[in-house]
Amino acid sequence: MSRELIQHIRQFTELTDDQADFITASVSERKVLKKELLLTTGDICRVNYFVVSGCLRMFFTDEQGMERTIQFAIENWWMTDYTSKDRNVPSQYSIQAVEDSMVISLDNETSEKLFATVPAFETYFRKILQRAYAASLFRIGLLYSRSKEEMFFGFQLKYPEFVQRVPQYMLASLLGMTPEYLSELRKKTDSSVS
Amino acid sequence: MSRELIQHIRQFTELTDDQADFITASVSERKVLKKELLLTTGDICRVNYFVVSGCLRMFFTDEQGMERTIQFAIENWWMTDYTSKDRNVPSQYSIQAVEDSMVISLDNETSEKLFATVPAFETYFRKILQRAYAASLFRIGLLYSRSKEEMFFGFQLKYPEFVQRVPQYMLASLLGMTPEYLSELRKKTDSSVS
Repeated sequence: MSRELIQHIRQFTELTDDQADFITASVSERKVLKKELLLTTGDICRVNYFVVSGCLRMFFTDEQGMERTIQFAIENWWMTDYTSKDRNVPSQYSIQAVEDSMVISLDNETSEKLFATVPAFETYFRKILQRAYAASLFRIGLLYSRSKEEMFFGFQLKYPEFVQRVPQYMLASLLGMTPEYLSELRKKTDSSVS
Repeated sequence: MSRELIQHIRQFTELTDDQADFITASVSERKVLKKELLLTTGDICRVNYFVVSGCLRMFFTDEQGMERTIQFAIENWWMTDYTSKDRNVPSQYSIQAVEDSMVISLDNETSEKLFATVPAFETYFRKILQRAYAASLFRIGLLYSRSKEEMFFGFQLKYPEFVQRVPQYMLASLLGMTPEYLSELRKKTDSSVS
């Protein structure tokens, strides 16, 4: 239980076995089914989710009723709405399982307890937040790309595992293009590789 | 010296006077002139900048030679390239002063020392990173907006102070539109307000 989380923390900072045991005892793991919602727009987000296996997405629905995915989380990524969680306000987003997934749920109370008692846990979060923030700025840069084609190839270069794993229509939504257009682009890549 | 930084930290977490003095003694404040570069594309980023007064921007130059601003920092915001800083790799970005500014420079060695000796300093960074990360996801959501007009109004609603402060051509670059188009949009807002 929670072995993946402990391993991930140790990639960023040192953790004694006692600290690891304490973290493991504090969090809970749960299975979520494909399409299950972990957060619904309008609710207050009180949990941060760590993906042990599977895939989550965060999305909002625009005025035209279109679902817009703003990020995915696969193994070893956390997903939450920090705006809602930190300010105790209703979330603009929903979080949904893209496939059957195992997640670790970290609620506010537990995270405050862990930050206060295990300094390395806070170091870990600072470091993964630096990485997540940098990744989102990189995506903002991509969204300025002149063409959708450029954006797709930039994304594929940086996140090949995402491009393989995530359903085509969701990847299309992430990149702001139609699934049909994305399919054409992927055919181009495949033929240039072979 | 560094009073603004200490005040800002105390908005997020408690700090004893001794800790505040220690932080103040560890960092240095400097003046940067309008257009001065604090980081140049291709260099390794080793410093995190806190804006005491003025405004910085982070940008890259695309294949067409266009400068693309991916973020601004005004008072109380930090600016750095975490990808370059954390991995010790050349930066894709440049950081430039938009106007004459006062900044606090926090180099890697000093930040490691402060994180190790003042736990509240790490708590502060975790919290501002949560906020910065959430803000960048909000911007990604805006970039999916159907129209440039929608994007501008969404941005203006969330960051009215930016829209007032930042030069028109830079704001246009941030939103991916021409300065002329932005100028038209602003006229619309002004006339609807009056």
